[in-house]
Amino acid sequence: MDNYEKIIAQAKKIFQKARKSHDWDHTRRVSNLCLYMGEIENADMEVLQLAAILHDIGREEQDASEGRVCHAAIGAVMAQEILEEHGLPGDKIDKVVHCIATHRFRGGKAPLSKEAKILFDADKLDAIGAIGIGRAFVFAGEVGAKVHNKDVDVEQTKAYSEEDTAYREYLVKLRKIKDNILTAEGKKLAEGRHQFMVGFFNRLNKEVDGEL
Amino acid sequence: MDNYEKIIAQAKKIFQKARKSHDWDHTRRVSNLCLYMGEIENADMEVLQLAAILHDIGREEQDASEGRVCHAAIGAVMAQEILEEHGLPGDKIDKVVHCIATHRFRGGKAPLSKEAKILFDADKLDAIGAIGIGRAFVFAGEVGAKVHNKDVDVEQTKAYSEEDTAYREYLVKLRKIKDNILTAEGKKLAEGRHQFMVGFFNRLNKEVDGEL
Repeated sequence: MDNYEKIIAQAKKIFQKARKSHDWDHTRRVSNLCLYMGEIENADMEVLQLAAILHDIGREEQDASEGRVCHAAIGAVMAQEILEEHGLPGDKIDKVVHCIATHRFRGGKAPLSKEAKILFDADKLDAIGAIGIGRAFVFAGEVGAKVHNKDVDVEQTKAYSEEDTAYREYLVKLRKIKDNILTAEGKKLAEGRHQFMVGFFNRLNKEVDGEL
Repeated sequence: MDNYEKIIAQAKKIFQKARKSHDWDHTRRVSNLCLYMGEIENADMEVLQLAAILHDIGREEQDASEGRVCHAAIGAVMAQEILEEHGLPGDKIDKVVHCIATHRFRGGKAPLSKEAKILFDADKLDAIGAIGIGRAFVFAGEVGAKVHNKDVDVEQTKAYSEEDTAYREYLVKLRKIKDNILTAEGKKLAEGRHQFMVGFFNRLNKEVDGEL
């Protein structure tokens, strides 16, 4: 598609004030994963790449509304406008919009197409593995949390408190992500990333006890 | 020693306003490592434990002076006062003070005793391995840096800038730490922690390219 680079530039601008957890770097990583998985899964690469580049453009609206607006829903509307502006055929636009609208999937619309499932998986994969570990600790730093509390009580602590650690995020969320992955290639990648996280936190707990 | 718990409580209080990178948790981890290594190296455990618990009590003075005061030097003076207050024999105090005064060792006084070398190693070990990775990313979060920039130019960027990442810290500092470890057991632990970091960042670079 001729306008692909222009659309990338347009999308990138939207991320200027983005939080580190869902910034342009996150979009690039998700896009890289979509390229990798899309080739293996024989996806429509034009649809998939556009969807990946545009999937989080609604984040700022969601943050500004304090979560009342869903970034997937508003992002789908924003993406439609951008793609119409660039003259993409209507059926392609519909396919891209479906991917973006369903990439969050919290009881809302489910991803149905191959491309939507790949985007969904790529977005989740970026929360686990070595990059998931890095993101979780950066987030701990941003909210002023401890580096590590191996005895963290997930029942008695809230997310984003000082006692909240990357480890808490791992126990509550990250270690369950692999079970929600949809595509065959995504499951393979998720398994490798999951095992790496298990090893990381096992080692971390031994290190803080001075045993390794 | 009867007063050990009282000295711990006294030391802990000093850390109430400490930065996450050198907080009471860091002191506890260093203390755990000293216990582990001290047993293997047949160290004077009373000296070593007191030194571990008190080694960073001068941090706040260093931060308040914007680095003009060295926390090892001022910490040694503060420790001497605390231990005299608790009636520790003079020769023991001298041994503890030597450990604290030399644990930083940047062209200043070198650690000469077995206990001083173990404390020196334990303090360095807490900057590498899984815990070193966690600390580096938390620090990135605290200063508003990116999660990861695999193409970071260590010559053209400064430490603590937004382009500075945990990876930069690894390239510039953390991967060299194992070469400065002094004791046999410390070297063994450092090698394991070093290899784990190498594996982590190799994997991270592949993940961000969408290949793993």
